[in-house]
Amino acid sequence: MPGNTIGQLFRLTSFGESHGAAIGGVVDGCPAGLPIDQHAVQMELDRRRPGSTPLGTARNEADGVEWLSGIFEGRALGTPMGFLIRNNDARSSDYDALKDVYRPGHADRTWEVKYGLRDHRGGGRSSARTTAACVVGGAIARQLLTRDGVQVNAYVSRVGEVALGGIPADLAPVWSSAVRCPDENTGARMAAIIEQARAEGDSVGGVVSCVVRGLPEGLGEPVFDKLDADLAKAMLSINASKGFQIGSGFAAAALRGSAHNRLSQGGLAGGISDGSDLFFDVAFKPPATIALAQETLNKTGEKVMLEAKGRHDPCVVPRAVPIVEAMACLVLADHWLRQRMARIGRT
Amino acid sequence: MPGNTIGQLFRLTSFGESHGAAIGGVVDGCPAGLPIDQHAVQMELDRRRPGSTPLGTARNEADGVEWLSGIFEGRALGTPMGFLIRNNDARSSDYDALKDVYRPGHADRTWEVKYGLRDHRGGGRSSARTTAACVVGGAIARQLLTRDGVQVNAYVSRVGEVALGGIPADLAPVWSSAVRCPDENTGARMAAIIEQARAEGDSVGGVVSCVVRGLPEGLGEPVFDKLDADLAKAMLSINASKGFQIGSGFAAAALRGSAHNRLSQGGLAGGISDGSDLFFDVAFKPPATIALAQETLNKTGEKVMLEAKGRHDPCVVPRAVPIVEAMACLVLADHWLRQRMARIGRT
Amino acid sequence: MPGNTIGQLFRLTSFGESHGAAIGGVVDGCPAGLPIDQHAVQMELDRRRPGSTPLGTARNEADGVEWLSGIFEGRALGTPMGFLIRNNDARSSDYDALKDVYRPGHADRTWEVKYGLRDHRGGGRSSARTTAACVVGGAIARQLLTRDGVQVNAYVSRVGEVALGGIPADLAPVWSSAVRCPDENTGARMAAIIEQARAEGDSVGGVVSCVVRGLPEGLGEPVFDKLDADLAKAMLSINASKGFQIGSGFAAAALRGSAHNRLSQGGLAGGISDGSDLFFDVAFKPPATIALAQETLNKTGEKVMLEAKGRHDPCVVPRAVPIVEAMACLVLADHWLRQRMARIGRT
Amino acid sequence: MPGNTIGQLFRLTSFGESHGAAIGGVVDGCPAGLPIDQHAVQMELDRRRPGSTPLGTARNEADGVEWLSGIFEGRALGTPMGFLIRNNDARSSDYDALKDVYRPGHADRTWEVKYGLRDHRGGGRSSARTTAACVVGGAIARQLLTRDGVQVNAYVSRVGEVALGGIPADLAPVWSSAVRCPDENTGARMAAIIEQARAEGDSVGGVVSCVVRGLPEGLGEPVFDKLDADLAKAMLSINASKGFQIGSGFAAAALRGSAHNRLSQGGLAGGISDGSDLFFDVAFKPPATIALAQETLNKTGEKVMLEAKGRHDPCVVPRAVPIVEAMACLVLADHWLRQRMARIGRT
Repeated sequence: MPGNTIGQLFRLTSFGESHGAAIGGVVDGCPAGLPIDQHAVQMELDRRRPGSTPLGTARNEADGVEWLSGIFEGRALGTPMGFLIRNNDARSSDYDALKDVYRPGHADRTWEVKYGLRDHRGGGRSSARTTAACVVGGAIARQLLTRDGVQVNAYVSRVGEVALGGIPADLAPVWSSAVRCPDENTGARMAAIIEQARAEGDSVGGVVSCVVRGLPEGLGEPVFDKLDADLAKAMLSINASKGFQIGSGFAAAALRGSAHNRLSQGGLAGGISDGSDLFFDVAFKPPATIALAQETLNKTGEKVMLEAKGRHDPCVVPRAVPIVEAMACLVLADHWLRQRMARIGRT
Repeated sequence: MPGNTIGQLFRLTSFGESHGAAIGGVVDGCPAGLPIDQHAVQMELDRRRPGSTPLGTARNEADGVEWLSGIFEGRALGTPMGFLIRNNDARSSDYDALKDVYRPGHADRTWEVKYGLRDHRGGGRSSARTTAACVVGGAIARQLLTRDGVQVNAYVSRVGEVALGGIPADLAPVWSSAVRCPDENTGARMAAIIEQARAEGDSVGGVVSCVVRGLPEGLGEPVFDKLDADLAKAMLSINASKGFQIGSGFAAAALRGSAHNRLSQGGLAGGISDGSDLFFDVAFKPPATIALAQETLNKTGEKVMLEAKGRHDPCVVPRAVPIVEAMACLVLADHWLRQRMARIGRT
Repeated sequence: MPGNTIGQLFRLTSFGESHGAAIGGVVDGCPAGLPIDQHAVQMELDRRRPGSTPLGTARNEADGVEWLSGIFEGRALGTPMGFLIRNNDARSSDYDALKDVYRPGHADRTWEVKYGLRDHRGGGRSSARTTAACVVGGAIARQLLTRDGVQVNAYVSRVGEVALGGIPADLAPVWSSAVRCPDENTGARMAAIIEQARAEGDSVGGVVSCVVRGLPEGLGEPVFDKLDADLAKAMLSINASKGFQIGSGFAAAALRGSAHNRLSQGGLAGGISDGSDLFFDVAFKPPATIALAQETLNKTGEKVMLEAKGRHDPCVVPRAVPIVEAMACLVLADHWLRQRMARIGRT
Repeated sequence: MPGNTIGQLFRLTSFGESHGAAIGGVVDGCPAGLPIDQHAVQMELDRRRPGSTPLGTARNEADGVEWLSGIFEGRALGTPMGFLIRNNDARSSDYDALKDVYRPGHADRTWEVKYGLRDHRGGGRSSARTTAACVVGGAIARQLLTRDGVQVNAYVSRVGEVALGGIPADLAPVWSSAVRCPDENTGARMAAIIEQARAEGDSVGGVVSCVVRGLPEGLGEPVFDKLDADLAKAMLSINASKGFQIGSGFAAAALRGSAHNRLSQGGLAGGISDGSDLFFDVAFKPPATIALAQETLNKTGEKVMLEAKGRHDPCVVPRAVPIVEAMACLVLADHWLRQRMARIGRT
């Protein structure tokens, strides 16, 4: 079973290579009758877009989403919603040097070993560009959730050594912050770290946190499709993510039960939402592609020096914020529908 | 779609409540002809068994696995392997007091809200006892992996404040250690922390680490079923787990790319195994059920004091070690089979 | 993905070989709170049981179903219902002669080619005995459907040359008829044909028809999981079935539209139930195993004469009636739940 | 789980309404490295195209398939292949009269009941136009099968009262026959029947037969995903199909075992292919939409007279031939891949 579909009842099937004709997908399982705000979808996509923050790559894609089906007179038909986003600004020639070289820390080599061939241009399907399809799917999922009062908000809580503690009450400032941090001072310090890394031809890691408010009780399917298990999978499927924790997370490992029982469980118990705020973190590594020359291998196994020429982000977390939200929305909408099955007398 | 099945090609469907007639499952997709060592399965189950370490609960289950189908003359038939484990030592009366009370930090309330009813005895299906079925499934998965030289070894790397750094070269001592830590001195300190928590009627959290050696290149399905994404999901489905990280994990968030590129990626790139050792951590919270009296809610919403009477582990990580291994084996066997699909010319 | 699971939301995973320890399964996705009448399940199983009609095999299995989980105080917990049926009267020695011989018209050879080994006793998993698990799952499904007024009734409409035309208004006499035909005279003629075939060491084919009354409008998922498509799959998965038709079926091929438009569509349009009675037929071939000596092949490819010694049905359709009902109930319960997803505003 | 995806390992997800922007789909699971002949795909699509035979509808769609991803330098990347076909010649105004009227024998009413709204133009997603996506997916599947020597050929074996008996040895003349019948004389009589029905403003039913040659032994997954069960489902998912039979089919019901055992089983035993030719039939009803005025219901439940204005086929079977082939190819490619899982030692 191929790995390009996520979700059981609300599901996104994604397609597309970074420098192919288009990326896109099919959103299936959206309940009929849902009013679809296509403008709002585009706004979410714009937040992920290269160029959306001055801290990102210089690649500029208009990233206009084109809808092909499933929406009629402003509402979901209950049929699959096909969509695509053309790849316009693909400077594939930037990648000619990579045809026979494997970039360190990238999927170039594993991909080629697995499939026997690859589209080397821009990383092909291993590029983070594929997450644009997730953002579109997530935006539809969010419109389903919003009707029920569910709010999904992510933000940058760490860049390198600079971290923001606690859960900010007001998340509105996220989108006016270049670094997507709701605290202005902390955000400025984070931005400085990113700019410094860029200036030095280097990159830096970070953490995106996400809080979900207004989630109903009872979402999550034991024992394997627990809500946190599905969130963990969705978050680890984002490019460059290396870890997921919910509630007290890894800090819980150092605690006594008497202390931990007084803390939030992160919004669920036994994998099922408990009606309180859901809270989780996603760790992102620093981008492997840096301007500094690095030693790597070519196809014939020889060591070569590589100086990357593509346009890359020195830190992925600002652009990862809308992706984390989108993946969370996809998981939550799926479980929101799955919850309809749990009991008799719920037609 | 109910959440009691894990895996696409190699899959386990699990059933059973803690104090019902039996727990069990169906292992499906095991390739025909695989020699099945039933004794080895029982040995793995014995490692998870209540009573397997002096640090665990006093509940004593023989936990003998009974095979019902799928094995013929010592080999897998290619048909589903049904199995069960009887619940013998279920002292359900311990739980009478819990019928109308929700234990803090447990799934009692979320379960009842979701389903409208629950089997309150021993936590019903939200009990960690259900993981015995995972251990059986994982043991079969391991026998498939072992033929190809894959070794999956977990161990306790943290209990409370005591942590073991680095990846031990020799993991053989794990099973002779009461706390399942391969380093004798560190293990002794961990055991002392657990005994102290028990003596004080309290509990403590910890971390289980897992290393996979001999894994072939090319396992993992982009973009949503990445190997690490499926591992994250499997680990977060284990009772009491709160976090997952692979390779540098959350530590990567604080690093520069120039430094991080010199580190191990944790055994994969772009979600596909790269042939090096796979390494990940799972965080476990301290058990919520402690002997200390705690304030909680009853069904009518009144605050009541609760003193737990069941037999519980003061720390789950020693017994979580075989479960982490089992869940990892289930994921790896599934991807080991899925890898057969990737290319033409591979019949 | 192994082929031992049917259904998306209401699903049965089946296991077991004819002469292994037990057959059984896991019913998952049954909504919590459904009252479960275990006695009614057993009654349905008794209708399929060898020995349930004087026209069947002489093999006598008590076929008592043992429930292992998922039911608590008479109601569905919302958790998987594990169950098993022991194989008591397995005279495996009857099959010793078949160890190295492939019976004509059976799955002996295809099974061995596919898997490289097989449990030759009683056909192993290719035996119709596996349908007992379907009957159990179908009986639970029926209890869900009955609450909503859905009635699923099958009957024998053809044995050899004797056919019953039209849809009988009164299906109550089915279970008092040895041949499971609601019309007494036709049933007597069918029984005579079966007895004659048995007397001559031969077998005979037939048709089971099924009518579903009280089905709500709107069940069925376009475009691939149409209600009739899922029914067709379920029916062709029954041993010895060779065809499926709905409504006018193959007769429609000979008709003009002006005439056909006046006929029933069989209870659906565009794959979605239309609120009228659903009606379909399933064709069954005559059992391949007959007492008459037949030429066949052994493992080394030599022609040998085979005289079957096992106890077999001269005609499968009387015993197929409860199986057709069970498979229909499984499909309908699944779509009954899936229908809950179709629109907004249906929590 | 929405019903727009077919297949487990080789899978097609389909989208699109008849008069929306486009129809299309995602082919996922095609093994990497497969040479893709895009011209051959287009040729198959042309065979289904409105206007491909003089016996079909007058609607004229160029139906050019546009590939969006998954193919690189003429070979499959192992990534999902997104594609679309624009709807150019959609004369939606033909359907204005149908906005508030339900056509007899169509899905208009069931669709609206299920979803609460519908795209009435050309039947929306219930239109047979959606099968164009199946033909594209099937054409890719065929290219996988052809490498292994598998040949899938369908043809018209019945129109109204005129039938072609037996399986023709030479199926090459199918595509030069307007009615898609390999026997010239029979084809001429079939064409006459269709033309007469058209002249009288009526329609007529028929049967499409399909023979698969060169299929390896061992395809099909017991017990629920038998090869014939999956074929039955695929065929019943085609618009206007009402029945499926394999091998002797419904004729088997009238036979004795001693006679039936001498016949072909239709290419399989126990749901698993046996290496002989696979043979099955699909029954199609006469199109419900006819030029003759018919009484029907409008939204408010009043009886109204309806004279259809759209351009429709008087008989679907000539155009159903490539669709039957495509659906068969999708099922066979899926099982061809699933077969890779069956045994150890098959990497």
